[in-house]
Amino acid sequence: MSEEPRDDEAVRQEPDGLQERVTELQDEVAELQDRWRRALADLDNLRKRVSRDASRVREEERARAAAEWLPVLDNLERALEHAGNDPSSVAEGLRAIHEQALDVLARLGFPRRDDTGARFDPARHEAVGVLSQEGTPDGTVLHVVQPAYGDGERQLRPATVVVSKAE
Amino acid sequence: MSEEPRDDEAVRQEPDGLQERVTELQDEVAELQDRWRRALADLDNLRKRVSRDASRVREEERARAAAEWLPVLDNLERALEHAGNDPSSVAEGLRAIHEQALDVLARLGFPRRDDTGARFDPARHEAVGVLSQEGTPDGTVLHVVQPAYGDGERQLRPATVVVSKAE
Repeated sequence: MSEEPRDDEAVRQEPDGLQERVTELQDEVAELQDRWRRALADLDNLRKRVSRDASRVREEERARAAAEWLPVLDNLERALEHAGNDPSSVAEGLRAIHEQALDVLARLGFPRRDDTGARFDPARHEAVGVLSQEGTPDGTVLHVVQPAYGDGERQLRPATVVVSKAE
Repeated sequence: MSEEPRDDEAVRQEPDGLQERVTELQDEVAELQDRWRRALADLDNLRKRVSRDASRVREEERARAAAEWLPVLDNLERALEHAGNDPSSVAEGLRAIHEQALDVLARLGFPRRDDTGARFDPARHEAVGVLSQEGTPDGTVLHVVQPAYGDGERQLRPATVVVSKAE
């Protein structure tokens, strides 16, 4: 565009020069229309792909997360098979399975959180009981009924807790 | 360039008419350049959004899938708490937890598959043993060592199996 003649120059041009300029500009218009249409087509294709991809990504992630639990399932089946022969080992098996399940959740980004002794925080705790306990400041988590998994933006649920309160 | 007038309409146009045409075309070029640039900018923004969205979708799906397991974790903790007081109930608790874990996997789209008696299929089965069994056709799944979860495109793993074979 920097080579465009200014108006005052243009009007002094001979008809032949102007005709050439018209042809040049017509070519430029055709070229730009083509580019514009291609960009619009790309945009349209990308929009369509986005919605297809989102459901594919979702499916993949669900499968990936689910696959992490298969060893836990296998151990549950194994523990059940042995439950009849060796009842005393069942509690031990259960403990190992629990540890394994905690590991899976931690690997997925949601470690078990122990809030005992923490300052009560409504974003992280849901109080289901209140107790007074000498020497403990108000609003301290005395007991965790159900633990939280994950923290901050990645908290799966708040912990259910019993909180201290002055008499 | 020849100075001879060519025999087309353009050269017969008055310089003023041509100059108007040049101005029109210049406006059109400017307009098209603007549209093209805006389409490219939209495309660029969409591309950036796509990669941000994919990781957000992934995180959300992982959290959703992980949250499904929390009741299983809670029951594992509960069963462990009671294991000391009432050992006989542990096997029962384990069975209930196993059922619950199967339900979660099924809800996520990966039901436990029982392949006993099925025709051996390398896409669905991994043979870890071979047995001959009278009256059973070759390549029949006799025993499932580890079950598959899900099927077809949604299979998390093939089943580990023992297969029949003629002597």
